Amino acid sequence: MIHIDNVNSLPKAIDIIEVGPRDGLQNEQAVSTKSKIQLVDALSLSGLLHIETGAFVSPKYVPQMADSIDVFNGIKRSDHVVYSALTPNRKGLEAAIEANADSVAIFASASEGFSQRNINCSISESLNRFSDVIEVAEQYGIPVRGYISCVTDCPYDGKTDPKTVASLAKTLLDMGCYEVSLGDTIGTGTPNTIANMLDSVLGSVDPLSISAHFHDTYGQALANLYQALCMGVTKVDSSVAGLGGCPYARGASGNVATEDVLYMCKGLGIETGIDLKAVAQAGWEICKQLNKQPSSKVSWALYQQAHY
Amino acid sequence: MIHIDNVNSLPKAIDIIEVGPRDGLQNEQAVSTKSKIQLVDALSLSGLLHIETGAFVSPKYVPQMADSIDVFNGIKRSDHVVYSALTPNRKGLEAAIEANADSVAIFASASEGFSQRNINCSISESLNRFSDVIEVAEQYGIPVRGYISCVTDCPYDGKTDPKTVASLAKTLLDMGCYEVSLGDTIGTGTPNTIANMLDSVLGSVDPLSISAHFHDTYGQALANLYQALCMGVTKVDSSVAGLGGCPYARGASGNVATEDVLYMCKGLGIETGIDLKAVAQAGWEICKQLNKQPSSKVSWALYQQAHY
Repeated sequence: MIHIDNVNSLPKAIDIIEVGPRDGLQNEQAVSTKSKIQLVDALSLSGLLHIETGAFVSPKYVPQMADSIDVFNGIKRSDHVVYSALTPNRKGLEAAIEANADSVAIFASASEGFSQRNINCSISESLNRFSDVIEVAEQYGIPVRGYISCVTDCPYDGKTDPKTVASLAKTLLDMGCYEVSLGDTIGTGTPNTIANMLDSVLGSVDPLSISAHFHDTYGQALANLYQALCMGVTKVDSSVAGLGGCPYARGASGNVATEDVLYMCKGLGIETGIDLKAVAQAGWEICKQLNKQPSSKVSWALYQQAHY
Repeated sequence: MIHIDNVNSLPKAIDIIEVGPRDGLQNEQAVSTKSKIQLVDALSLSGLLHIETGAFVSPKYVPQMADSIDVFNGIKRSDHVVYSALTPNRKGLEAAIEANADSVAIFASASEGFSQRNINCSISESLNRFSDVIEVAEQYGIPVRGYISCVTDCPYDGKTDPKTVASLAKTLLDMGCYEVSLGDTIGTGTPNTIANMLDSVLGSVDPLSISAHFHDTYGQALANLYQALCMGVTKVDSSVAGLGGCPYARGASGNVATEDVLYMCKGLGIETGIDLKAVAQAGWEICKQLNKQPSSKVSWALYQQAHY
């Protein structure tokens, strides 16, 4: 039983959405505004075309993002790069508009338990809140990205029904989101659960409208991304140096590392337009500030080779 | 373009060949004989059915394996477990026979450059040497496993031709090896190069006669294993706690971690018969002796969950 066809169904090129400065740093100890600006500026020169730069959220609950306005004001913008912000509500959106964010993102959950605990409301209540954000964003001509968390499993509710993810993805796109990012928030997905979820989503949604956002808590993220790429997904969220974490397993790995995704894509012959070494270098710099080592194996191997 | 078929081609069950006590510890700092025995004994109780326990090689070049005879003599053997040893030559084989090894392994390279630098002879010279080992092993009724290194890339010769791997695999099986382990020694393979290599090998060799032996130096091992499983491979070499390293990127990650493989298999519905937590516990114990942390993300996430 030889099964090599999947290799032939891979896309020729993909977009990487760099979420390290937001989803990554939000789950790390706080670093200085200057370090964040240096990180975004370094990433801007790597060929990345979308950098999630900050979040306009409660500084009480997410102190790591309290200086997002200063980060947006401090960075050297490249015309080619979209600098986006997470904006869970209208107040956040207004702050993002003031910060001249190029794009904003809202954050829904595919599980009721996670929605209640993460944003203190039901899924349908969150959609009401987002419709207000989307309406105002449209008035300002700001594209809105939708996140869906817990697309395979929820730490409170267990397995997520793929149909729920499909329905929520379609709803967010119908409401006006230009793209939906499908998050394996706790990193417990494996290629089959990812495949089943995507199979359901792709039944009603254009593959070009979705992005794969996988955490590497259990080391499965690259295998899961490979499965997603084989199914026609052409957008991937990743985090420089694997910055970030999992709030349900403190100290565990965070988002899949951008460096590891770039290495796999290069091997697979998938164009990204991004300079792996520049990203790895930016990762080592921010990790120095965080007093940790990159969780990217590629970054680590490149470093060791250079110093061996 | 929805491509979910590969999930349906996965095997129902696989065998794990645990190589941590040999391929792993050979590339770590030396630990005491007692620690090695405790490791093998703990792994023996986890449900693993094949543990590569030591190597009978030059203590000058591989001092970490100098006490393999004491390890073999000190372990509590389970009737269900195969305890094997690496034996590069007749002298090694004789030591393995004295140690009552249940199975032995020889080590060939798919690249001339690696063969010369690793075992000081050409590929064809190594085959001559192995034919002597296989002949004597057969007289003693000891099964011989064949390793092939550098199946996708060589640190000296660059890309490996899949046809060379296929031809060498067939030769080793024809010579009497019961199984051939295909090693991505430097961990630079990606799912497509693994697929191309396997496609070539499976053209002339039964999938039940091969094992996937992938290093995680660049974080690609699980994605590569997933591809291999989709192509009918039913045997996987892995190393508890991801023990081991890469001689060409010192400090970099080693073999794919048994824990991460078990987690993926469980998710994929593939039976292994192995207790993940028992393996993870054995990994934490040996890592304590090595004064390092497991490189297995699963092990790390389980630990953090338990202590959070």
